[in-house]
Amino acid sequence: MQAVVISIGTELTLGQTVDTNSAWLAQRLAEIGVETALHLTLADELRPVEAEIRRAASSFDVVLISGGLGPTDDDLTRQALAGAMGVSLVVHEPSLIQIVEFFSKRGIAMPDANRVQAMIPVGASAIENTTGTAPGIRARLGRADLFAMPGVPSEMKVMFERDVRPALAARSGDGVILQAVIRTYGAAESEIGRQIADLMKRGRNPNVGTTAQEAIIGVRINAHGKSRDEAKRLLAADAAEVRRRLGKVVFGEREETLQHAVAELLWAAGKTVSTAESCTGGMVAKRLTDISGSSRYFLDGVVTYSNEAKHRLLAVPAEMLARHGAVSMEVAEFMAANCRTISGSDYAISTTGIAGPTGGSAEKPIGLVYLGLATPHGVSGRELRLGDHLSRDQVRDRATKAALNMLRLELLGGR
Amino acid sequence: MQAVVISIGTELTLGQTVDTNSAWLAQRLAEIGVETALHLTLADELRPVEAEIRRAASSFDVVLISGGLGPTDDDLTRQALAGAMGVSLVVHEPSLIQIVEFFSKRGIAMPDANRVQAMIPVGASAIENTTGTAPGIRARLGRADLFAMPGVPSEMKVMFERDVRPALAARSGDGVILQAVIRTYGAAESEIGRQIADLMKRGRNPNVGTTAQEAIIGVRINAHGKSRDEAKRLLAADAAEVRRRLGKVVFGEREETLQHAVAELLWAAGKTVSTAESCTGGMVAKRLTDISGSSRYFLDGVVTYSNEAKHRLLAVPAEMLARHGAVSMEVAEFMAANCRTISGSDYAISTTGIAGPTGGSAEKPIGLVYLGLATPHGVSGRELRLGDHLSRDQVRDRATKAALNMLRLELLGGR
Repeated sequence: MQAVVISIGTELTLGQTVDTNSAWLAQRLAEIGVETALHLTLADELRPVEAEIRRAASSFDVVLISGGLGPTDDDLTRQALAGAMGVSLVVHEPSLIQIVEFFSKRGIAMPDANRVQAMIPVGASAIENTTGTAPGIRARLGRADLFAMPGVPSEMKVMFERDVRPALAARSGDGVILQAVIRTYGAAESEIGRQIADLMKRGRNPNVGTTAQEAIIGVRINAHGKSRDEAKRLLAADAAEVRRRLGKVVFGEREETLQHAVAELLWAAGKTVSTAESCTGGMVAKRLTDISGSSRYFLDGVVTYSNEAKHRLLAVPAEMLARHGAVSMEVAEFMAANCRTISGSDYAISTTGIAGPTGGSAEKPIGLVYLGLATPHGVSGRELRLGDHLSRDQVRDRATKAALNMLRLELLGGR
Repeated sequence: MQAVVISIGTELTLGQTVDTNSAWLAQRLAEIGVETALHLTLADELRPVEAEIRRAASSFDVVLISGGLGPTDDDLTRQALAGAMGVSLVVHEPSLIQIVEFFSKRGIAMPDANRVQAMIPVGASAIENTTGTAPGIRARLGRADLFAMPGVPSEMKVMFERDVRPALAARSGDGVILQAVIRTYGAAESEIGRQIADLMKRGRNPNVGTTAQEAIIGVRINAHGKSRDEAKRLLAADAAEVRRRLGKVVFGEREETLQHAVAELLWAAGKTVSTAESCTGGMVAKRLTDISGSSRYFLDGVVTYSNEAKHRLLAVPAEMLARHGAVSMEVAEFMAANCRTISGSDYAISTTGIAGPTGGSAEKPIGLVYLGLATPHGVSGRELRLGDHLSRDQVRDRATKAALNMLRLELLGGR
């Protein structure tokens, strides 16, 4: 079974909003053995949307649409769908009642504009929206099962999981694609490609490829099997082989982040961490607390942005700041060491650097960052020269990743 | 002039990576008066990519492609492009020399795999890559000017700005679309839609629409003019009208964030801020320091995740923590007040809440967050009940936005 995923919204075609729905939907489809061949993003224009819906429904088994079901005049998906089906729109009474109730529960009368959200094409059925006002629409068109969902990601996701996935899983059946993504940090993409070149040969099953994204290199494995078990077996074999070859640069799978890896290691060891940040401004602490249950390992953090704060909160000597500058190995190591002492944690991470885009000099260019790591066995530091071609965000992101990875490798120890 | 933006990569169609290139490219095209009609995302498969390139080049004036120029076997854009053009690939010597140099500068020999990156279709020209190894490709096909760029966002962006934009701007000419996005926080999308309903009428120029994204409602205005001046005039008039009607919920334009708005206000007033965070774990500090030059207003922050840290770093009385719990208005206000005192800042923001997905109770459900704001005139607090349908990330994001907005409104004062 092959699918096309369509996102509708002029804010998307004009690039004012990044479409995250299509990627999410494609992932969910893959989980039930439906391969997404194509994503299409269209503006809020009646005729083109109508034409593309018709074309998609004639070529694919599944058409998923998100967006354009809102209450305002620029939301045209239901009209376009009715046009593609060659039918008119009618009010779906149960949906209307639900929308009225949605507002009355919040103590407000339904705005007139929202009435249109209860309309669906003749012959289609409504999909209940349990988290917002716009019901989804399910229809049969051409060779396709077609599902239109709201563009708001949280509403779309609930609707997909609750109604669309079960409907599709029931229809699917011949062959399953299972996928794994193994995430690495610390080796270049071409180096990874060299180490697994034989697995990446075209036409091979599983199909293996690499992707680089903000210093994380992902190795993606797609295994096709006649049965779920067969796909699972193929996938597991390749995943194990990739992990074996790449070793410690592998830190996780799929959506896992360096902070997930660090969290697992801290949990397993029963250890705690604290942070002392300058240039990353709280990003390291934020990522360490991304994880539910982080209170078991994260004690506290300080963001000592000014020299005065470095002195007051971490007792960095004024003399050291004057002599080496705030952006120096000495200060990074001191920050980490004293952060660990003050908070009583097992480990402490520190960052100090020049995030840019201003503030660089010949001696201390943008992208120069010092990291400190204090452990029960001592303190170490690391100098990063990330380069002035990176944005402020990127410098902070890379510094944060490098800091988390320092701790990860420390926790891995001799393993 | 109309464009199609094509992203290539199986990691994209399978949803393992979110495509941000297309949105970025569409924005840049709009700036030079080229309207993007369609985004297409295709897997790394030779025939479909070849077919879609041919179809796009026969229907649109501009075809921008990103992705599939890497050194590994799953990168097929140059082969597909040669196929669509009906020509073969040849080595482009200057590119080959550049790739060899790229590696030798870094003290390594060029891996054999990278040699293919120097190949371009006969009749096409190479676009220099100043930040990576893969040159881009420029070609004329059908009615289109076609540009293929690397998929790595940072490389693609530099290449677009340096070579593709000037080439397109020279070709463009009839009519200009200018766009503005006015960003609001604190009012529902339907309420905003009601207030500017007349401006949102279909067929009107400028074209006005709304978009909701993670509690930020954007009002997007696209003005079409025969000349740049005409488009500019139309845009300015609508933007002013939208701002007038929506008042203080407007916090910025385009990519601007609540932290930008707060930064501007703090700069203008010459005031400083510090942060005391629990559930947001550093996110407020991170966002306040997103801005280059934030050292002028951001003094320091603490992430007091544990009760012990709240007591040690902010002197929150153990008795208060025991009596009201860490997630309480009392603790939020105390954290803000004492953070301000200790750091000597003009303002202090605090957060404490239940981010989930675990840790909620009937009395204190997931999504319950208390915010504190200390000012020279006293301390205030706010209770948020964000709902347990939100993810941990969303709860933290919404709490951070609400906290930043509290400070923003305070700084706006009687304005």
